[in-house]
Amino acid sequence: MTEPLFGRIALIGAGLIGGSIARRARESGTLAREVVVSARSPETLRRVRELGFADRVEEDPAEAVKGAGLVILCVPVGAFAGVMARIAPHLEPGAILSDVGSTKGSVVRDLQPLCPPGVHLVPAHPMAGTEYSGPDAGFATLFEGRYCIVTPLPGTDPAAVETLREFWRRCGSMVESMDPVTHDKVVAIVSHLPHLIAFTICGTADDLGEETREGVLKFAASGFRDFTRIAASDVAMWRDVFLNNREAVLEMLARFTEDAQAFGRAIRRGEEEFIVDRIRRGRKIRRSLIERKQA
Amino acid sequence: MTEPLFGRIALIGAGLIGGSIARRARESGTLAREVVVSARSPETLRRVRELGFADRVEEDPAEAVKGAGLVILCVPVGAFAGVMARIAPHLEPGAILSDVGSTKGSVVRDLQPLCPPGVHLVPAHPMAGTEYSGPDAGFATLFEGRYCIVTPLPGTDPAAVETLREFWRRCGSMVESMDPVTHDKVVAIVSHLPHLIAFTICGTADDLGEETREGVLKFAASGFRDFTRIAASDVAMWRDVFLNNREAVLEMLARFTEDAQAFGRAIRRGEEEFIVDRIRRGRKIRRSLIERKQA
Repeated sequence: MTEPLFGRIALIGAGLIGGSIARRARESGTLAREVVVSARSPETLRRVRELGFADRVEEDPAEAVKGAGLVILCVPVGAFAGVMARIAPHLEPGAILSDVGSTKGSVVRDLQPLCPPGVHLVPAHPMAGTEYSGPDAGFATLFEGRYCIVTPLPGTDPAAVETLREFWRRCGSMVESMDPVTHDKVVAIVSHLPHLIAFTICGTADDLGEETREGVLKFAASGFRDFTRIAASDVAMWRDVFLNNREAVLEMLARFTEDAQAFGRAIRRGEEEFIVDRIRRGRKIRRSLIERKQA
Repeated sequence: MTEPLFGRIALIGAGLIGGSIARRARESGTLAREVVVSARSPETLRRVRELGFADRVEEDPAEAVKGAGLVILCVPVGAFAGVMARIAPHLEPGAILSDVGSTKGSVVRDLQPLCPPGVHLVPAHPMAGTEYSGPDAGFATLFEGRYCIVTPLPGTDPAAVETLREFWRRCGSMVESMDPVTHDKVVAIVSHLPHLIAFTICGTADDLGEETREGVLKFAASGFRDFTRIAASDVAMWRDVFLNNREAVLEMLARFTEDAQAFGRAIRRGEEEFIVDRIRRGRKIRRSLIERKQA
């Protein structure tokens, strides 16, 4: 049997992602001998105990990280600086410090300055999720067949990076490396901007007059349903994503807005060729996605 | 056994919708005794003959409508004025003239002036579709459990309206009535604007630098995949929708753009409360949709 990669791992946060890592570790046996989970709210702590996917549950994250060979921050990225201040003095020399945040520049900004010598900071972003959140939402196969992007910093111990990559492979993920800046731009256009749009269009519809709004709710066609599906996400997580990937999200929003305005202008002026070209480009990208089996 | 509603029906256009109506009529036996199909392109005509879902295939729409108790235009709405000029002199007195277009103001504009006395114009919009198009894409159950919105004009014979409503009920649809102006606003926000956004964001991504674009294609998260799914639609149909529901689409685009800019401004200024409020509103609308069993 494959030996576990770690003796003890500590998960700070027990929502969809943290709860899924814990379940995976318990089921596979090849990730860690012991899973320690910490969470901030009393309700989450109580629920994690009831669900039983942790070997030990700690209210204090500083207690949770003691003796852990791998610590993964699984809280919204806006809480990273505060958590790091609490746990930094208690991290084990030689331990790997990682995370699952959707932004990577902010993670480096918030964790690196406090990272003790001998602790290996290796940020990561498993690109998996559902529209549900909280400790009940996790499941052991969440990461299977999904990408996990690792964004190591120059100079990080290659052995530590490889160990974390192996951890995610054993979770079932396809592991890729990227620098944090490119990562933040890519997720801004493939995930953060689409969510911003989805949250916005729901509000736009809600602001319409009574008669139209009634029709919206009744006749929501598939287009609008797709928007609202991705709009049913964790509030704190998305608030922190927007605030911590600000530059990339604003850049992509500006580019998108210019393009949408150009589309609107073509509609107003009846420019068929422009409109047809936009529709064709959408289909072209769609085909690229299908060819890459991401669709 | 239920008697067929019509002796002969004529479908002008044999794409996803026209092909589905024809198949439904052939399978159910309660819609019409005879289904005549006309299409513009030689390839479509040939394919309709091969697929065998029409009792008769006519190249000339004027021939197709002769003797039909119900004529349904199933071509992109931009072709309505041209088709109407061809068929108007040949419509049977007492016949119902209807359509399946996604815009209703333009349909009234293009069909009503040429509608002969004694022919009942009853526009309709079955809210059903897939991401596929063409004569091969149709299937008999496409309309089951989906809304069909009928937008009769004031003064139209109530018996003709009720006959068309019954036709759609027998296709499996839930039939609702609405005035054309409200219809066009509702579909602008639930369907046309989401498609405009989807087409646009594909182009925005395609315009990014090489490194980022490569990441986009590789790591397309579910958010962006949803956009590209709805972007894989019929080019001519969508071109005509945007050009023929211009005022409502531009109004909704303007409202949405203002709201998206306000969201961006809140991100730039770090206004947490505003961001959280937008996310919560998205979730609220999502819940409304689920409660209405439209999700």
